Amino acid sequence: MNYANIVSEIRKKKSYLCIGLDTDINKIPKSLLDFEDPIFEFNKRIIDSTNDLVVAYKPNLAFYESLGSKGIDSLLKTVDYIPENILKIADAKRGDIGNTSNMYAKSFFETFKFDAVTLSPYMGKDSSIPYLEYEDKWIILLALTSNNSSIDIQHFKNSNQKNLFEHVIEDSLEWSSQENTMYVVGANRVSELKKIRDIIPNSFILIPGVGTQGGKLKDISLNTMNENCGILVNVSRDIIYSDSSEIFEDQVRKKALEYKIEMESLLIQKGLV
Amino acid sequence: MNYANIVSEIRKKKSYLCIGLDTDINKIPKSLLDFEDPIFEFNKRIIDSTNDLVVAYKPNLAFYESLGSKGIDSLLKTVDYIPENILKIADAKRGDIGNTSNMYAKSFFETFKFDAVTLSPYMGKDSSIPYLEYEDKWIILLALTSNNSSIDIQHFKNSNQKNLFEHVIEDSLEWSSQENTMYVVGANRVSELKKIRDIIPNSFILIPGVGTQGGKLKDISLNTMNENCGILVNVSRDIIYSDSSEIFEDQVRKKALEYKIEMESLLIQKGLV
Repeated sequence: MNYANIVSEIRKKKSYLCIGLDTDINKIPKSLLDFEDPIFEFNKRIIDSTNDLVVAYKPNLAFYESLGSKGIDSLLKTVDYIPENILKIADAKRGDIGNTSNMYAKSFFETFKFDAVTLSPYMGKDSSIPYLEYEDKWIILLALTSNNSSIDIQHFKNSNQKNLFEHVIEDSLEWSSQENTMYVVGANRVSELKKIRDIIPNSFILIPGVGTQGGKLKDISLNTMNENCGILVNVSRDIIYSDSSEIFEDQVRKKALEYKIEMESLLIQKGLV
Repeated sequence: MNYANIVSEIRKKKSYLCIGLDTDINKIPKSLLDFEDPIFEFNKRIIDSTNDLVVAYKPNLAFYESLGSKGIDSLLKTVDYIPENILKIADAKRGDIGNTSNMYAKSFFETFKFDAVTLSPYMGKDSSIPYLEYEDKWIILLALTSNNSSIDIQHFKNSNQKNLFEHVIEDSLEWSSQENTMYVVGANRVSELKKIRDIIPNSFILIPGVGTQGGKLKDISLNTMNENCGILVNVSRDIIYSDSSEIFEDQVRKKALEYKIEMESLLIQKGLV
């Protein structure tokens, strides 16, 4: 998927919702445990009940890897099940030397057929370049994350009071573009989101941390949207674990729909749909 | 394995060699491709022919993940096959919010039974803490890596000319100890290695980049060893791909032995064995 495809999908669906598939075998409805592949069954029902409301799904790889090869099979089936027009993001936060990044890029983009992968910027440009060689695929660089102690590192400042997260974004602009690179900024970083939008007026920003982690959809959206929307807001636990009954998918859809309706009204308010 | 176990193993074997199991299906001897699990067969022969010469093995997860669930099975078998007294390092370079780090810690330490995992420090303390709750397990924080563009990020300086990599190490000292935390510093960072040793006199430093990547064993060892040795030097490609014949393990052992003999003489020179 390229930039235009994503923007078009946002306008069509009137939504910039990404659902995080942080699927934990200990948290899914007990009624699913009798299925051969409970993890995939859970994801399948989430996807069936929400795919008209979202523009992206973001499986978090930790949850699948913790189950060994069975988890990897569940992940492969899940990615395969997501409809073509929806962005498939591997939340992996990788970052390694070029030789290894080649393998990861192959893994995410060829073996799993993801469209995008989250990366840690700590090792710099050459740890990202191998991913950029794939056409219409994306890297999503961690810039300013939502966890408390991110500040200890990401707010490390140079003599001009520039924060590390700003440096990371500026550095990436020298070797990537808005057509292949997005940035992760936590929903609780409202004031910094505005500053970051000034550095990258056109790039997409992936914003996790709405819902369980406490970010407010309205504030962050109005502060950060650009003329192409330019943001994807991720919600995980607040949607996928909103009900634990046998018919959990009804509540999941209801919850996703609430987000979608609020997003539609914000898109209208901004004159984007 | 705890600090004392590792030091004891180094003294016993007169070696601080770690072999990186960056096992690539396209690079292993063709004769192995007829086996049911060529990746495991390759690793098994490497382990059989070198386990008396090394104190650690470090599988790089990218190489296994790129093969999907089959690769994960090969990895599980490999870790299980490594003798008890040898440190098993997951070269994963993870780093995520606490909730996700919990899952990764479970994955690496319980599912795979690794002793240690490499982590990216970009998200700060709370992305590392879940791993530290496991007794006698290790995190290995990326400090200064061997790739060229690491400098763009890791040499970002504050107003006192302190580099980000120094800040990362100092920050970690507030919430971790030499009993559970090591640091990755590339073998080509000879001058910085000395500086880093001053900040962490007792901690173990994992040094990749000897061999194919060009670092020199003697310089880095004499500059960086402490009274407990305090370094693990990783060699991957230069050992594991040193021969592509059917009896490649003979050459692999020969190559590993060359490193081990040089290490023994450096340990003697430092009065450590």
